[in-house]
Parts: sequence; C-alpha cells; structure tokens
Amino acid sequence: MPVYFRSVDLSKIIGRQIASYRKQKKISQEKLADLSDLHPDYIGKIERGERNPSIISILNILDVLQVPYGEFFSQIEK
Amino acid sequence: MPVYFRSVDLSKIIGRQIASYRKQKKISQEKLADLSDLHPDYIGKIERGERNPSIISILNILDVLQVPYGEFFSQIEK
Repeated sequence: MPVYFRSVDLSKIIGRQIASYRKQKKISQEKLADLSDLHPDYIGKIERGERNPSIISILNILDVLQVPYGEFFSQIEK
Repeated sequence: MPVYFRSVDLSKIIGRQIASYRKQKKISQEKLADLSDLHPDYIGKIERGERNPSIISILNILDVLQVPYGEFFSQIEK
C-alpha cells in the first residue's frame, strides 16, 4: 500500500482508538484537550483521523487517558 | 515533571531507541531516511531528540526497521 494511503489509514485507526479509550474513561473531548494541553477542535480532528499529530501530543493524550503506550500501539498494528 | 521537560525527555528516549534499532539492523541514517521518505538530516535530529516528529513519521520508521509498534513503545515507558 502506497505510503500516503497507509498514513491516512493509520491516522484513522489511531483516532478511532483514542476516541474508544476516551469514551471508556468517560472523558469529554474538551476535558481531554484541557488535560493534554491541546485545542478541543484538534482532539476532534485527531479522533476523525484528519490530523497527523506529533508523537509527543499522542503520548500526552495516552498519559491523560492512562493507557500504557505498549498496549495502545500493539492494537494499532492489528 | 512539567509537560515541557517531559516532552524533551521523551524525544530523547525515542531518538535513542530508534538509533539503537537502526544500528542493530546495520542501516545507515541515509538509507533509513530514503526508505522512510524523510530527509537524512531529519533522521539525525530525531535520533538526537531535537525534533518532535509526527506519529506517522515514527511509524514509517518503525515499519522500515521492522520493529513492532507495541514492542517499541512499551520500552519507551520504562
């Protein structure tokens, strides 16, 4: 699969996964944005796979959601 | 630890980890850059923790190095 399509694909998978964990933890996009030092709109765009955030932004989000990095990224691979 | 220091810290840990895997696989920075569609200088800066690359750039690098995402990121947490 060409790199471009794979990255759009990965962004969507990552976004869906973040949204899933956020809902499990019953945290709003606004609250997640506030705690991870990002704009609420940006959280929405990440969850829809519309952005390619930095690795640090993703790890900050996982810290807020208290999701182990290894657990999160092993699910991305499947 | 304040978010800023943590992110500089994480960038250095991630960079060292990428350099370690790259050397294990006996791939030059130039070859890794070529295969992951990034500039050679940028690979060097990532490895020194001087840049905060996008999640897709990191995952592309891991694909080239054939390192499972879950394995890589569980080591970042330690």
